[in-house]
Amino acid sequence: MRIVEFPSRAEWPDLVRRPSLDTFALYASVADILQRVRVQGDAALYDYTREFDGVELSELAVLNNEFDLAESLVPNELKAAISVAAANIEKFHMAESTASYEVETTPGVFCSKRWLPIERVGIYIPAGSAPLFSTVLMLAIPARLAGCREIVLCSPPQANGAIDPAVLYTARMCGVTKVFKVGGAQAIAAMAFGTETIPKVFKVFGPGNQYVTEAKLQIMRSGIGIDMPAGPSEVAILADETCEPEFVAADLLSQAEHGADSQVILVTTSRSVLAETLACIERQVAALPRSETARSALDNSTAVLVDSINTGLELLNHYAPEHLIVATENAQDDAEKIINAGSIFIGNYSCESAGDYASGTNHTLPTNGAARAYSGVSVLSFMKAITYQLITADGIKGLGPVIATMAAAERLDAHKNAVTIRLERLAKEGL
Amino acid sequence: MRIVEFPSRAEWPDLVRRPSLDTFALYASVADILQRVRVQGDAALYDYTREFDGVELSELAVLNNEFDLAESLVPNELKAAISVAAANIEKFHMAESTASYEVETTPGVFCSKRWLPIERVGIYIPAGSAPLFSTVLMLAIPARLAGCREIVLCSPPQANGAIDPAVLYTARMCGVTKVFKVGGAQAIAAMAFGTETIPKVFKVFGPGNQYVTEAKLQIMRSGIGIDMPAGPSEVAILADETCEPEFVAADLLSQAEHGADSQVILVTTSRSVLAETLACIERQVAALPRSETARSALDNSTAVLVDSINTGLELLNHYAPEHLIVATENAQDDAEKIINAGSIFIGNYSCESAGDYASGTNHTLPTNGAARAYSGVSVLSFMKAITYQLITADGIKGLGPVIATMAAAERLDAHKNAVTIRLERLAKEGL
Repeated sequence: MRIVEFPSRAEWPDLVRRPSLDTFALYASVADILQRVRVQGDAALYDYTREFDGVELSELAVLNNEFDLAESLVPNELKAAISVAAANIEKFHMAESTASYEVETTPGVFCSKRWLPIERVGIYIPAGSAPLFSTVLMLAIPARLAGCREIVLCSPPQANGAIDPAVLYTARMCGVTKVFKVGGAQAIAAMAFGTETIPKVFKVFGPGNQYVTEAKLQIMRSGIGIDMPAGPSEVAILADETCEPEFVAADLLSQAEHGADSQVILVTTSRSVLAETLACIERQVAALPRSETARSALDNSTAVLVDSINTGLELLNHYAPEHLIVATENAQDDAEKIINAGSIFIGNYSCESAGDYASGTNHTLPTNGAARAYSGVSVLSFMKAITYQLITADGIKGLGPVIATMAAAERLDAHKNAVTIRLERLAKEGL
Repeated sequence: MRIVEFPSRAEWPDLVRRPSLDTFALYASVADILQRVRVQGDAALYDYTREFDGVELSELAVLNNEFDLAESLVPNELKAAISVAAANIEKFHMAESTASYEVETTPGVFCSKRWLPIERVGIYIPAGSAPLFSTVLMLAIPARLAGCREIVLCSPPQANGAIDPAVLYTARMCGVTKVFKVGGAQAIAAMAFGTETIPKVFKVFGPGNQYVTEAKLQIMRSGIGIDMPAGPSEVAILADETCEPEFVAADLLSQAEHGADSQVILVTTSRSVLAETLACIERQVAALPRSETARSALDNSTAVLVDSINTGLELLNHYAPEHLIVATENAQDDAEKIINAGSIFIGNYSCESAGDYASGTNHTLPTNGAARAYSGVSVLSFMKAITYQLITADGIKGLGPVIATMAAAERLDAHKNAVTIRLERLAKEGL
């Protein structure tokens, strides 16, 4: 880890710089994949799966007997753990307010808003090094709570042509309606445009590599929604002398093991906490199966010594981390001063992995500084709102002249005419 | 207008096809503008303004005396109308629920969610044919209600080097903090990356041409949020024999005058309504200053005769219009059966221009079928939520084994370790 002591504000932008998300380079090759899937449908998906995943599929859809097999392969202890996590996630997400409301803004003008589920949504679950059944929980549970009618899931097949059993088990448990063995940019294209086999959806969720991220950005041109552009995962920790350096080290490593491009930042007011944490990291990292990955991530990471908790809070608001652990004496008060973060873990016993799996909050969170503008995934991410206006004859008589004046000032005569034609009719009828 | 009678479901996709939003072609030239603004800052903005707007500026920022001048130029009648509209918009938008909540998901695990304003937001207001002060109301009012600290507005200068007085007047009235004379993709770039003069913002809102839309899509790669990708404006009308063909014609024309690429669709169960509406359109269009534009838009538009209101509702859900006027006998019930639309206007006196200006709902709405997944702009569009978890020693003792089991199954040992190290400490301390 790079150690920086009492940096000036001028140095902050450099301190919090992310590995750049340069998907521009992938633009043309991803556009090509999208276009081929759009035109050739399933045939393109079989071809890409052979080429990129090295698997010859006879069927894209996961069949019932495969779900049954998966269920028999998942150990009971894991099933029990998944169901505890699912219950917590459901409990937290159900509390979201999706209430409709109505306001009479002016006499005879009734405006209202109603939240509705997005009818069809798609979930992408990468394969790669870990079977991310936890991400299935985080996306399928809010989709089901929102009331989405169709929940499609795509995930690349493993070398044996199957999807990981825990992923399939969790998908069925959470009410995913259809699962397909297809990965990468081609999976995103299939869900955005539809193929003979894969239904077109209206919004696509889930993490993925740079090809997947670039594909998600490109399908927005066709009116398809996406959860957010995803970059490498991050954690920041704010710690003072009341923290437990052994825990801080473990939390930094739990982020670092995600990938060499993960970023971890320790911000502390205590020189001894910094030294002890580094010593604990050295002891702990050696025992990890992914120690090489973690060491690479730590090489890109920074420990910052600051003169006060307030300076630390300002630096962290500037950074806008995906995950923030606050291990300070007044952790709750300090957490409330943070305005830019995805999810915050308060106090020594609130480790990031609790939120990754089972506390109940969502782990699909804004990375790359996007926490300044984006929220993590919630039930609202799977809904959209329609607004309504019901205007009575009296309502248009009252408001009509205002509308006509504004329309005329914007030089939109037909807009004005739509009002005056109604006002004239009412006058003619003596109403 | 193209007239289609009793189309089969197989014909629906063709009926509702939009003019394609092919911004792919602009990709490279917009990427170039973004890069130049990023590197050269203000200098690039002065150059582009000279090149694209034909204006030599001495200053990008609108100064106080320009706001004062604008205020003196706006007629009192328009000022009064704007303030009525602003009051309605404020009343409706304030009713949005942005309540925080806390849930103890399992003993000792306290999860919560808090909505916060996005600290700095940017609003783009195009110039072109109309001075869109109404869009300033629709974006700046919810930004202020959300509590955004900085609200930056960019709009291209007119030939005289100034921004339209009504736009400036409305911006100051609504609490916009800074206004700059810059337009096009270069304005989007300036707000996304910041320049010497223009502050970097975290989310960019507002309509624009294809260059602006493409620039908004590209800045998402840098973690900047956008309201939605915008396409040409649209209205659909569902009408039965209880409608007023004269009103229907006026509403169709009010959308058609926006631009030759606007789309209007009439869906009706009544052959005589269809014929009368077409006759009314012929009478009304001749009197419009923008009759040429309206006629071009109508050439691309469709009137559909359907066998029942239910068929009409299904077709409209398939289309997902930005604006939908329901002029039927049971307008309110019919409106409730619509699941895909931006904003719905219920009954004969609820014209679209009411919502465009003054009913209180927002007029920044999803086009191009995006209403299947997107909501219109609201106070929530200017906020983001942070989630929190506070886990006690007892909480981690209860939930820790679940987290450890799941982390191990995802082969993330450091995630597991972050929990077990805490559980071991508690065991050692006999807690």
